[in-house]
Amino acid sequence: MLIREFESGRSLLARLDHGEEIIGQVTSLIREKDIRAGQLNIIGALEQAEIGYYDQVSQKYLGVQINEPVELASCSGNISLLRGLPFAHVHAVLSGMKGTVWAGHLTSGRIFAAELYILELKGMDLIRSPDFVTGLNLWREE
Amino acid sequence: MLIREFESGRSLLARLDHGEEIIGQVTSLIREKDIRAGQLNIIGALEQAEIGYYDQVSQKYLGVQINEPVELASCSGNISLLRGLPFAHVHAVLSGMKGTVWAGHLTSGRIFAAELYILELKGMDLIRSPDFVTGLNLWREE
Amino acid sequence: MLIREFESGRSLLARLDHGEEIIGQVTSLIREKDIRAGQLNIIGALEQAEIGYYDQVSQKYLGVQINEPVELASCSGNISLLRGLPFAHVHAVLSGMKGTVWAGHLTSGRIFAAELYILELKGMDLIRSPDFVTGLNLWREE
Repeated sequence: MLIREFESGRSLLARLDHGEEIIGQVTSLIREKDIRAGQLNIIGALEQAEIGYYDQVSQKYLGVQINEPVELASCSGNISLLRGLPFAHVHAVLSGMKGTVWAGHLTSGRIFAAELYILELKGMDLIRSPDFVTGLNLWREE
Repeated sequence: MLIREFESGRSLLARLDHGEEIIGQVTSLIREKDIRAGQLNIIGALEQAEIGYYDQVSQKYLGVQINEPVELASCSGNISLLRGLPFAHVHAVLSGMKGTVWAGHLTSGRIFAAELYILELKGMDLIRSPDFVTGLNLWREE
Repeated sequence: MLIREFESGRSLLARLDHGEEIIGQVTSLIREKDIRAGQLNIIGALEQAEIGYYDQVSQKYLGVQINEPVELASCSGNISLLRGLPFAHVHAVLSGMKGTVWAGHLTSGRIFAAELYILELKGMDLIRSPDFVTGLNLWREE
């Protein structure tokens, strides 16, 4: 197990922009504010979204395109460094008006309304690099 | 994008009361403790619940009444001010015994057991007011 | 309502071990680090899992075994003391490759990849003991 201990940094609440792409907005924010590690949570609604499921055998993401408005019923993730830049890894649970529920890796989504909480974690760098067992970019020992 | 930076305030863990209405209990707690901004998370179970889906076209909430016991599998939200008073905006994912999953805006629910975490955020007021694009009460520039 | 106020302690990010049991790993970590109260969040994927639904009438957990890879789309919980030892109470939302979503109490799961955030809460003990109304181990007045 790789365990890293941090100091608490800044706490932010943000209203993301209607009509923009959610992962792009979060990424812009953490890069502009230089938040290199942290935890995040979002609630809101999206006009459309793409959820990814990681195929643990073929080691590829399968994307599911959701072409309808959805509630962002749960959305949480973490921030660390990938290729030297702040990177947000975000999972979500979405629900449509007819009761369908989708859940998985949040690849993208067009914002209807979204409220973001970020807790910055400070004191060291936590870096993602390719992991050969899973095929994912995971936190590694330096 | 509207971004506000806060200082960390109080951290609370609370056991909510069996048989009470969950949004009412959370609202009472944050008003009594004067928690004007923050982040919250709840796990537990409800005896019954109502979930809301926001219709992005008609700009009205559609309520779905769930008349059976459910696990509160995920429940998170934020605290800010609405009409001068602390207000909790809460989303949830619920699951019934037959495997049905509901997700969306948590309008109300009767508590079977519920464990609440609140992180208070301090240093400024974050105020909801009507947003004409979405029809929602969103955080606005002062 | 039982409300306890804490000071913020350590903040941890951890990469859990591929192939290990997730609740066991979290429990080992909080006991080794002596984290007696706190809040946690996990995202990742599991190779298989067991979700529990609490039957509020018979007061027994019904387990659902999920024998396929799943995304850990949401996973949150708290840490307190049970029988004198740090104990994690964890709920989750899981999704399979064919779109099935499961949600409830996370009883166990074999880790494919899992990223854990823990915020330690300090200053007092929060103790679970049997609650006769619900049949659960809940936080009680000392």
